[in-house]
Amino acid sequence: MPRRIGAWLVGARGGLATTTLVGARAIARGRASLEHLPLERPPYTALQLMPVADIVFGGCDLRQGSLVEAGLEIAAVNRSLDPRLVDDLRDDLTAIDADIGTGIGANFGRAIEALVGRDVVVAAMRPTLRERIATVEAALDAFVARHRLDDVVVVNLASTEPPLELDDDHRSLARLDALLDRSDEPKVRSSLLYAYAAVSRGHPFVNFTPSNAAVVPAILELAARRGAPIAGSDGKTGETLVKTALAPMFRDRALRVLSWQGYNILGDRDGRILSDSENLSAKVRSKDQSLASILGYRPHSHVGIDFVPSLDDLKTAWDHIHFEGFLGHRMTMQFIWQGCDSILAAPLVLDLIRLADVAHRRGEAGPMRHTASFFKSPIGCDQHDFHAQIAMLQAYAAAASAAGGSRA
Amino acid sequence: MPRRIGAWLVGARGGLATTTLVGARAIARGRASLEHLPLERPPYTALQLMPVADIVFGGCDLRQGSLVEAGLEIAAVNRSLDPRLVDDLRDDLTAIDADIGTGIGANFGRAIEALVGRDVVVAAMRPTLRERIATVEAALDAFVARHRLDDVVVVNLASTEPPLELDDDHRSLARLDALLDRSDEPKVRSSLLYAYAAVSRGHPFVNFTPSNAAVVPAILELAARRGAPIAGSDGKTGETLVKTALAPMFRDRALRVLSWQGYNILGDRDGRILSDSENLSAKVRSKDQSLASILGYRPHSHVGIDFVPSLDDLKTAWDHIHFEGFLGHRMTMQFIWQGCDSILAAPLVLDLIRLADVAHRRGEAGPMRHTASFFKSPIGCDQHDFHAQIAMLQAYAAAASAAGGSRA
Amino acid sequence: MPRRIGAWLVGARGGLATTTLVGARAIARGRASLEHLPLERPPYTALQLMPVADIVFGGCDLRQGSLVEAGLEIAAVNRSLDPRLVDDLRDDLTAIDADIGTGIGANFGRAIEALVGRDVVVAAMRPTLRERIATVEAALDAFVARHRLDDVVVVNLASTEPPLELDDDHRSLARLDALLDRSDEPKVRSSLLYAYAAVSRGHPFVNFTPSNAAVVPAILELAARRGAPIAGSDGKTGETLVKTALAPMFRDRALRVLSWQGYNILGDRDGRILSDSENLSAKVRSKDQSLASILGYRPHSHVGIDFVPSLDDLKTAWDHIHFEGFLGHRMTMQFIWQGCDSILAAPLVLDLIRLADVAHRRGEAGPMRHTASFFKSPIGCDQHDFHAQIAMLQAYAAAASAAGGSRA
Amino acid sequence: MPRRIGAWLVGARGGLATTTLVGARAIARGRASLEHLPLERPPYTALQLMPVADIVFGGCDLRQGSLVEAGLEIAAVNRSLDPRLVDDLRDDLTAIDADIGTGIGANFGRAIEALVGRDVVVAAMRPTLRERIATVEAALDAFVARHRLDDVVVVNLASTEPPLELDDDHRSLARLDALLDRSDEPKVRSSLLYAYAAVSRGHPFVNFTPSNAAVVPAILELAARRGAPIAGSDGKTGETLVKTALAPMFRDRALRVLSWQGYNILGDRDGRILSDSENLSAKVRSKDQSLASILGYRPHSHVGIDFVPSLDDLKTAWDHIHFEGFLGHRMTMQFIWQGCDSILAAPLVLDLIRLADVAHRRGEAGPMRHTASFFKSPIGCDQHDFHAQIAMLQAYAAAASAAGGSRA
Repeated sequence: MPRRIGAWLVGARGGLATTTLVGARAIARGRASLEHLPLERPPYTALQLMPVADIVFGGCDLRQGSLVEAGLEIAAVNRSLDPRLVDDLRDDLTAIDADIGTGIGANFGRAIEALVGRDVVVAAMRPTLRERIATVEAALDAFVARHRLDDVVVVNLASTEPPLELDDDHRSLARLDALLDRSDEPKVRSSLLYAYAAVSRGHPFVNFTPSNAAVVPAILELAARRGAPIAGSDGKTGETLVKTALAPMFRDRALRVLSWQGYNILGDRDGRILSDSENLSAKVRSKDQSLASILGYRPHSHVGIDFVPSLDDLKTAWDHIHFEGFLGHRMTMQFIWQGCDSILAAPLVLDLIRLADVAHRRGEAGPMRHTASFFKSPIGCDQHDFHAQIAMLQAYAAAASAAGGSRA
Repeated sequence: MPRRIGAWLVGARGGLATTTLVGARAIARGRASLEHLPLERPPYTALQLMPVADIVFGGCDLRQGSLVEAGLEIAAVNRSLDPRLVDDLRDDLTAIDADIGTGIGANFGRAIEALVGRDVVVAAMRPTLRERIATVEAALDAFVARHRLDDVVVVNLASTEPPLELDDDHRSLARLDALLDRSDEPKVRSSLLYAYAAVSRGHPFVNFTPSNAAVVPAILELAARRGAPIAGSDGKTGETLVKTALAPMFRDRALRVLSWQGYNILGDRDGRILSDSENLSAKVRSKDQSLASILGYRPHSHVGIDFVPSLDDLKTAWDHIHFEGFLGHRMTMQFIWQGCDSILAAPLVLDLIRLADVAHRRGEAGPMRHTASFFKSPIGCDQHDFHAQIAMLQAYAAAASAAGGSRA
Repeated sequence: MPRRIGAWLVGARGGLATTTLVGARAIARGRASLEHLPLERPPYTALQLMPVADIVFGGCDLRQGSLVEAGLEIAAVNRSLDPRLVDDLRDDLTAIDADIGTGIGANFGRAIEALVGRDVVVAAMRPTLRERIATVEAALDAFVARHRLDDVVVVNLASTEPPLELDDDHRSLARLDALLDRSDEPKVRSSLLYAYAAVSRGHPFVNFTPSNAAVVPAILELAARRGAPIAGSDGKTGETLVKTALAPMFRDRALRVLSWQGYNILGDRDGRILSDSENLSAKVRSKDQSLASILGYRPHSHVGIDFVPSLDDLKTAWDHIHFEGFLGHRMTMQFIWQGCDSILAAPLVLDLIRLADVAHRRGEAGPMRHTASFFKSPIGCDQHDFHAQIAMLQAYAAAASAAGGSRA
Repeated sequence: MPRRIGAWLVGARGGLATTTLVGARAIARGRASLEHLPLERPPYTALQLMPVADIVFGGCDLRQGSLVEAGLEIAAVNRSLDPRLVDDLRDDLTAIDADIGTGIGANFGRAIEALVGRDVVVAAMRPTLRERIATVEAALDAFVARHRLDDVVVVNLASTEPPLELDDDHRSLARLDALLDRSDEPKVRSSLLYAYAAVSRGHPFVNFTPSNAAVVPAILELAARRGAPIAGSDGKTGETLVKTALAPMFRDRALRVLSWQGYNILGDRDGRILSDSENLSAKVRSKDQSLASILGYRPHSHVGIDFVPSLDDLKTAWDHIHFEGFLGHRMTMQFIWQGCDSILAAPLVLDLIRLADVAHRRGEAGPMRHTASFFKSPIGCDQHDFHAQIAMLQAYAAAASAAGGSRA
């Protein structure tokens, strides 16, 4: 019998999750092409990835409503989904709704609280941290049992949390366990509870958000112990993708970057939450580190993110790069990126679910370094050069291919 | 005694050559930094490149005047050279003037004729093709003798020629020799005569221009016979550099490029000559081939080049990339490049001279495939992906390093 | 009884006409706002414009099919119309279909012939020029009779024709009549026949296309005789609009424009027809004249239009303005315009129909100079400064207001 | 004997003042053209403006050094002045140095204190406010006497101050006088002291900076009493100029602006001071008010200013305008402005000096409303539409012309 894999999405009714689910089911129904999935071609075919159509979806969200409603809202506001497609997939989406629970959480920060409402937040924060983790574990177990799954990949697609101040309590599993035992609320974020639950059950965990609380060192320690693959953090889909694809050119041509200013404007829930300075700082921190790593020096740089409601999910970025060439002469490059974030991210989510499955099958645990190209802040890997990251992924595929590796 | 290398520049008083010479002498005099030369750092240090300060320069040009005049004109019009620096290097530049001859030529095309004047053209086209080649060979021999050089690298920095219709006469050395014997003027361009002279004397030849007449198959045959390394064609400095650094990102993210429109505007002699449709076609042909090679399919694309006198050498390019992602959603990226072409090209010229020397020392003949990253139309190499080209160069450096290779 | 006005559109199933008709009926049905019509507010309310909902539409097109089909195609390809809106207006649009005839034509040029097909072209070119004009006149008369109209405004929204070489035969009505009598096909274009028919019946004529054949001097002579108001040519909706709004700033700040390069890319039928050099020249000629008129000198300038199928009606323009300020210092401004041409043009069409009605009511004949702000090549007016043109329109409204002028 | 006019510049060694002085003397010496002065042509010639060459310059600055040094620094860093020109004007500039004093000040704010140094600040803040004003008055009197001037125009070109919280003490002259009598330091800024001194001596005052403390209502009361013309505030030279030239187009085409995001990056002293949030708020406040005034509604908008040292005085702005047209369709315009602020501002300073002289001669006192086009926050005038402002200036010239008005 073929292997059955589930994907359990945290934030399952958000814009990205909805786009991912509509896309996956559209593919399953022959209504969308696989050509926009990066791994659906050589050399990655050697990895024998699970077909997208076979993935079983579930998850949780603090947000109410149905996937069809969420999809139609995106269609109306963003125009990135076709309302007729959402309509035609109504049965599939409604079936997934049955596997989407309410969710728990902790220490949300003011922006998320304002968005989901005080009542929902209060409900999600009951009772102790340990009991909340147990709730998630039980939900995962039930999902597995209901669909007779061989494995579940937990993917964090929730809103960006404010950064958590990390300390020794997050650096060893023993200390983290003690913290959880005393239900030390201010020392966790929701994402940490989900990561703990997933990994403690031996499931792979993918942190697609910038939240730094999700994959703390103690979680990596737990992952190593339980054999759980980990990937993250913060999907690289827009301005940072371009930045890490372009910066190597400046380095390799010995064009010295004097300043790299990047301004992002976007609307949408994501934009609204990022317009809160608390949450913004997590994102900016994640976006700004790549440049110095690639160039080998730290140019003057700035990453701005501003909320422009009318743009919805159409993210626009202007980057201005001032650089110095031969004889100290100064020149300029600018780029303007107009991309729809959820459209850019959804295929990455589908490929990461499948890569996590491959890694787990192959007995790999801890950081999936070969997925660095998917993330702004790759876990366990200092390589930010997009092309070098792709080379790492190709090498992984080649190694997997050499090792054989039929999908059971 | 250390090896002495000469560089003999065709078009030695043009904007690029002047910038290269001012830069090289500024480096020699401690007035400019080496940091903007791409190869002045690991892993390329393993190649033990000739110090820039030790290169002996000469060449030829149909254009009259001194290098100091040419440099001051660039300073006044372009502001890409500092007039005080040109002034301070007056002695060095005047010394090089003594090694710059008049030059020969053939079948110039109307734009170059209009620029240099009918008299100069007529003089340059006397007498037979064979005698003109002999004139160049004699100039090279004299340059070697005068400076007791161990080798001379001939670099074509002349204006873009109209493309030459190639046929069987250019495809074998025997046929080319017959063509030259009968002085079949319409079947050659100036660049072919220079390439022939250089290679026939066993010297490396670098074609930094788009001219397709320079390195025809018969020249490669001669190069193989005489052990002469060859590199070219068409330095990759601006829009095409960015294009070939960015296109891999679209490929690797499975973002389908629907159209890639590129518009270049520039002033300057270069722009004036390219404003002639004959010469333009050579450039556009060279610029437009990279995309299909990298992407694996041929998107709608366009490369425009327009002459805008007031911009001088400040080349501006706007590229508009329309692409399709997940679920067929369409998005846009645009970039604007404002670069000074001669500033961007000069360090490449200096590095190519030194790479040609390394190749010759190491006994390599024919296409220097590892220099693909320097060119829009790399000779003997189908790789256009800039990052893959850089990997080739790094591999060459690593191999050279492993092989030892002290500079004699 | 209130005045009843018809609008008879040449090219009634094209993208612009379809958008205009969907918009007009959406307004009539309370499904769209009037706020995007420039004249729906002071001081223009003094003109007592006909309500949009009361205009009766008809016209002709060589293209087959229904308006609903045309609207749904725009919705699918361009996303500039909402498919549900088109659907909801099905009855209204079908009613208009009944008033759209086949159309005649002459000397189409290769691009339009290729688009509509040889058979259609042959049919449209029968029999003599005089008889074709009579066909249009009969259609107008029937339209008037069927709807008991007080007036009909004929609006040319057909595809851009190749420019017609004008000579003395077009400069006087007597010569034009002789030309028509001998059915001198190469000396006319379709638009001229429509203009002649409209004006000969005393109806206002609006040439919204760049076609120079529509309003030749002989037509103006006929318009004066028959008391027909005339407006045109070439709706000013995108790059030229911005250009004529910005150029006065450079003039008034004494910033000398050195070069103004404009590059337009668009898909769509319009783009396909303009990709033919014949038709393109008409457009470029129309776009390029404004700059010298506003600045008082002729800077280096260029207007490019390229066909990019994937963009459909989403027109993108990049303009690069190089300018010189105090002490000869050079600076740059660039703009990028991403607009949907038919969305930008449709409200202008509706306002022009209503202005033509006002002019006719008020007994004005010949060029409607106060509509200069609507056009790239305003007929009978040398003013290209957009703000000065708006001042002319405001002055007209003020004068009309002062003169009283209730709508009968 | 012809009228002799002095211009006394506050911040006389800053970038803008230096550029203004080099330019004025270059014009006087026939080394620069008058064509970049907006008022050197009809209809403004009717105003019979003072020749630039005849203006006598003086002023004060907290900054040490000579004008030649300041000019050469700009030439080296910015390249907006030609070092040879500065050199050739050495005698003229040195003569002006003799008329530049040390300056006084009050309540500078941390950014300016950090820039000029604590010692200078302490010295400038001695002794009482009344005595500091007297110091300025004495300097003006001495300047007048030394050069036998008929009038002096005082122009504030100093660095942007943090905004001052205005209250009733600034709203009447009596209250302001009381405030000064008790030397209430926190209630003033340097600019207020200069404005008071100028106006109390009956001299015209031009506030070219955004500082809101300069022209408080009490100063306008004093100006009315002493017959002193006043102009300001905040020269309109870059992004705001373009914004106020473009926004009328959106208004007049009924294109509803949904959001207008503007991002400015600049280096230089100006940028450094604006990088302090205190001072920045003054600038942003000044830049952001124009949009709502022109459009008649307040779109979502943002004005960002970031310090990018490598850009020096080359100010770059990216504006992204999201707008809605017919049927609610959304479109985008973007512009990129790359201008040198001091080059753009200097001719405005020269024209304002001369307009202030005209106004004073003509017996006008208080706000020079006709100079609105020069300023981001025009004093005494709500008109922000650049074209309407230009119409006001033209009307002023026409009225002056009609009134006769030979220069005595």
